[in-house]
Amino acid sequence: MSRPVLRRPEYHKINKDLFVLTYGALVAQLCKDYEKDEDVNKYLDKMGYGIGTRLVEDFLARSCVRRCHSYSEITDIIAQVAFKMYLGITPSVTCNNSSRTEFSLILDKNPLVEFVEELPAGRSSLCYCNLLCGIIRGALEMVHLAADVTFLQDRLKGDRVTEIGITFLKKLDEKKCRRRK
Amino acid sequence: MSRPVLRRPEYHKINKDLFVLTYGALVAQLCKDYEKDEDVNKYLDKMGYGIGTRLVEDFLARSCVRRCHSYSEITDIIAQVAFKMYLGITPSVTCNNSSRTEFSLILDKNPLVEFVEELPAGRSSLCYCNLLCGIIRGALEMVHLAADVTFLQDRLKGDRVTEIGITFLKKLDEKKCRRRK
Repeated sequence: MSRPVLRRPEYHKINKDLFVLTYGALVAQLCKDYEKDEDVNKYLDKMGYGIGTRLVEDFLARSCVRRCHSYSEITDIIAQVAFKMYLGITPSVTCNNSSRTEFSLILDKNPLVEFVEELPAGRSSLCYCNLLCGIIRGALEMVHLAADVTFLQDRLKGDRVTEIGITFLKKLDEKKCRRRK
Repeated sequence: MSRPVLRRPEYHKINKDLFVLTYGALVAQLCKDYEKDEDVNKYLDKMGYGIGTRLVEDFLARSCVRRCHSYSEITDIIAQVAFKMYLGITPSVTCNNSSRTEFSLILDKNPLVEFVEELPAGRSSLCYCNLLCGIIRGALEMVHLAADVTFLQDRLKGDRVTEIGITFLKKLDEKKCRRRK
């Protein structure tokens, strides 16, 4: 229903509250549509994937990201440039394995849940922000990087922080990680 | 599922593309859920209403709007302050009747449809941006102003501009239109 328009959209910022509340309406609608949390999570991830594949071109054009020499660098760009640009926050990054293919983004603050106190009743397995995982996965795939992206911790589930895990699945092909022309 | 949190959310801006694409996903989901365009429109309006009732307090706090002496002034505030703050655009305003209760917001540009070329097949009566009407209606109701808010023209339907009509339904009670303390 919404095919890409060729002209590049004009860049400007909007107030985040409208986005956060609209996102809440989307999650509520999916909870109405799907009985199982797993299905809602899957669908949010799928929607996010579609969004990520469309955001990435504009992101690369605006962020002036050029070469990445490691997964570590890529994850830093996601945290410091992409999250900052799209959500106004900068998660911290940790590396979780010695082969440096598994990383975590630690979100001390998560704007997407600013109006949410707790998960709805009977929805204890809901990954409320799973759209974010899909977006990261979709954007990475567009630059030929396959990755698993999932929530490892979630403040809405009582964890101390919110943590998104990114596991890169293939050996990095350096050339493919450059900014597209 | 998303009860208001007492602390006021920190103010910051986000990139609009993420919002615009997420909104597209919401509309697509509703189109999947409801066969009739009228039902999708109604649901978008209803969701918007809920969002409007929650946005308005923060809007009044931040916009420093105090007294309104006429519907005309109120409509100007919606166009020049609220639209600017939340969507980064400033629609022009026209008054449509001599008793000055009917107004139009004319949107030359509509960020919500930046990634949309046309309405999906078989969806010719869809008011793609009907969330906006609901938001305005909800926000006005919270300051005790009843209004009908509908799309009168829509570029996605081939019209030259996008036009939102606001019809105020009751005589203005000046006191109630002040900023709430």
